[in-house]
Amino acid sequence: MLNASPDLRQQIEQTPVLQPQEGLRSSPIAVVVLTGGDVDAIAGLLTLRERQPLTVLATSTVHAVLDANPVFEVLNRTIVERQHLELGAATPLSLPDGSPCGLSVELFAVAGKVPLYLEASDEMPVLQEDGTTVGAAVSDGDATLFYIPGCAAMTPHLADRLRGAAAVFFDGTLWSDDEMVRAGLGPKTGRRMGHMSVSGPDGTLAAFQGLGVHRRVLMHINNSNPILLEDSPERAAVNAAGWDVAWDGMEVRL
Amino acid sequence: MLNASPDLRQQIEQTPVLQPQEGLRSSPIAVVVLTGGDVDAIAGLLTLRERQPLTVLATSTVHAVLDANPVFEVLNRTIVERQHLELGAATPLSLPDGSPCGLSVELFAVAGKVPLYLEASDEMPVLQEDGTTVGAAVSDGDATLFYIPGCAAMTPHLADRLRGAAAVFFDGTLWSDDEMVRAGLGPKTGRRMGHMSVSGPDGTLAAFQGLGVHRRVLMHINNSNPILLEDSPERAAVNAAGWDVAWDGMEVRL
Repeated sequence: MLNASPDLRQQIEQTPVLQPQEGLRSSPIAVVVLTGGDVDAIAGLLTLRERQPLTVLATSTVHAVLDANPVFEVLNRTIVERQHLELGAATPLSLPDGSPCGLSVELFAVAGKVPLYLEASDEMPVLQEDGTTVGAAVSDGDATLFYIPGCAAMTPHLADRLRGAAAVFFDGTLWSDDEMVRAGLGPKTGRRMGHMSVSGPDGTLAAFQGLGVHRRVLMHINNSNPILLEDSPERAAVNAAGWDVAWDGMEVRL
Repeated sequence: MLNASPDLRQQIEQTPVLQPQEGLRSSPIAVVVLTGGDVDAIAGLLTLRERQPLTVLATSTVHAVLDANPVFEVLNRTIVERQHLELGAATPLSLPDGSPCGLSVELFAVAGKVPLYLEASDEMPVLQEDGTTVGAAVSDGDATLFYIPGCAAMTPHLADRLRGAAAVFFDGTLWSDDEMVRAGLGPKTGRRMGHMSVSGPDGTLAAFQGLGVHRRVLMHINNSNPILLEDSPERAAVNAAGWDVAWDGMEVRL
């Protein structure tokens, strides 16, 4: 709630809370789409155990990460389906009973690096665009929402994809590349961690100028990033550039 | 807070909150002792990442579970030490700077089963007392506190160990063996899950009668267990038997 401006707070209060609709332990979560194999993308699966029917959608690269960690077998494969998505192919989403829900999802590669715990050394990892880090495009056939929590660079290919989109949720990890180093929080720059910064000539605000994306939301925000403070000049700058800062429980209607 | 009686609430309010003492991201956690390899015992490690000096103490059986899951490599081995404990050997605990903290910990086998995600079938698993499930005895050389979040049976050996202890935190998963089945929450009994029940002739309240344990606290409580309700007859029964129900943030002084 800390990050919500007054009108956003009003939105929050008007947002219905999702509650079990049937049975004592039912959940409205029918599908989980994974956008990476790093801890922050996959650890949440461990709190969904253990007998909740749902489908986990991910690239083969990310599914291989799950397969290599027996702890994820807590998601019983007879109940929780693991579906492999090909990059670039829109896949219709289904409810647990098999009926279509009217949405499709497409995963696409963005620039990123290997997950932290799979890094072989402390050296700068090679940026890859091979499906290790992906964005998701969710569409109802009319409007499309993009969800890209980690992205190391705005490539021309990505810019073409996002142009004119109804909504984009985008990697807002750091305001500036060296902010963690300067704050004494660690030795790594944003580039080292596989994230482009919000500010600067190569940053996110600049990269989205002229793309014509209607709703722009920063998320996946590190606690060193001053945009988290409602009264910071950096927050004012992202708002002035037409961006929102995401908050827990945010709901978007297109 | 839901579970706290008025005098316990007062205790909570008087309990100092642990805050970073040095640096922006320091933590008071110097040592983590694992009492099992199941998800609820190990998943929390993933939120301790990634550069916090601490020592993870566990049996070789449990360390083998971590070793088999590359996701736990996020606890950088150059910063987070993984120390193997022999069952039945008291080990002095150290602060990150290597100085002794005045406490020792001993892990000991209790009756339990293999972790859920390693079960080979849905059949009743064989109960083992081999170090897969362990209790921890923490001592300052004078008083001893036992922490036993999962236990399938009170064996004579365990009763001997606990007799006269200053404090025991004990597996309070279920009130009665078939409560989850009766509530329609799942097909498994407490026995099937490797837990003894709180009530009944073979239950925890009965098993501790005559052991002379001074402070007795139930924890690891399933959300089907009526002792979680402050005004339930089951809560009254455990209180009448001299037990407390643990709550988040509970602090015990011996």
